Amino acid sequence: MDYTSLPLKRLAEQFERMPGVGKVSAQRMAFYVLGLTPDEAKNFADAITDAVSKLHRCSICQNLTEHDTCPICENIKRNKSIICVVGTVQDLMAVEKTGEYDGVYHVLHGEISPLNGIGPDDLTIKELLNRVKNEAIDEIILATNSDTEGETTAMYIQRLLKPFELKVTRPAYGIPVGMELQYADNITLGRAIEGRQIF
Amino acid sequence: MDYTSLPLKRLAEQFERMPGVGKVSAQRMAFYVLGLTPDEAKNFADAITDAVSKLHRCSICQNLTEHDTCPICENIKRNKSIICVVGTVQDLMAVEKTGEYDGVYHVLHGEISPLNGIGPDDLTIKELLNRVKNEAIDEIILATNSDTEGETTAMYIQRLLKPFELKVTRPAYGIPVGMELQYADNITLGRAIEGRQIF
Repeated sequence: MDYTSLPLKRLAEQFERMPGVGKVSAQRMAFYVLGLTPDEAKNFADAITDAVSKLHRCSICQNLTEHDTCPICENIKRNKSIICVVGTVQDLMAVEKTGEYDGVYHVLHGEISPLNGIGPDDLTIKELLNRVKNEAIDEIILATNSDTEGETTAMYIQRLLKPFELKVTRPAYGIPVGMELQYADNITLGRAIEGRQIF
Repeated sequence: MDYTSLPLKRLAEQFERMPGVGKVSAQRMAFYVLGLTPDEAKNFADAITDAVSKLHRCSICQNLTEHDTCPICENIKRNKSIICVVGTVQDLMAVEKTGEYDGVYHVLHGEISPLNGIGPDDLTIKELLNRVKNEAIDEIILATNSDTEGETTAMYIQRLLKPFELKVTRPAYGIPVGMELQYADNITLGRAIEGRQIF
């Protein structure tokens, strides 16, 4: 893009660094910002610096929060004896959105991936084990992804949890609701048959 | 989205207001920001406030600039006797990108659109006429869009320019380079035949 002014160019470059944003979208976003009032622009700018400066990990579950503990850990209605272990805060949000889960979480902040140099010590597995040791936990749901990294992470944690004699579960994998059987991929269909349930 | 922390929610909402950004993209962008260092976040925030506070219209051509006049008007290599009239700064950037134009510009900041309550006085037409009166202009290229608003604007300005006995032109409309003839729409093909040139 031939930006004739430096502040506009700089702004578009900032947007262009974001995931899924190309040159054209970045330009459109920069011109959107130019249409903001100084107050609106300040709010936008503050939202960016606030998110980075105010958010840190919940001292219990490692979810992001601006307080010492997150609203889920602080909620007395949540069942503290079930921990759903997820890779990222986005995964936590996806489970929350279902409205089906009333337990608490543990965010690993990654999954074991030797190819990317991410080992167990880079995740919050130690913190999870401390919770298992010190809290009254009945069940751990290992809701890591179903790809290689996620499966590896789940198996690694499962092994560490064995001495505690807990109920350790994994979400059901099968045909997505609404999908026609013929369009399910082999691995998913295989898992669905393997994990079949009484009707 | 079920954001469990307010700063994250606020940030995602800011992104969601941008054109072409949905809930899912906004969430991804918010998490991208969380991955920035405090310095990077500050640069991003400053780029937003700077663009709004520092940019204003060039006193000659109405392009956006942080100085009194824009780099194009200040460039001694540009031909000051040809003015390309465009609707928006984005249009100016599109013409610049071609590398084919060495004249200067005039940005109208809109096009006449009675339906949207935009009349000639909302545009920088007065400023254009002042330039025509006071500068040594040979040609005006009316490069407004080819839709109703753009055509109306071009015709309106053309009428105002008649007393000055200038060369007033409009970009050629025709078949896009690389497009097969059979796929061109009727109006475009009609214009292409009408505007045929000696081979």
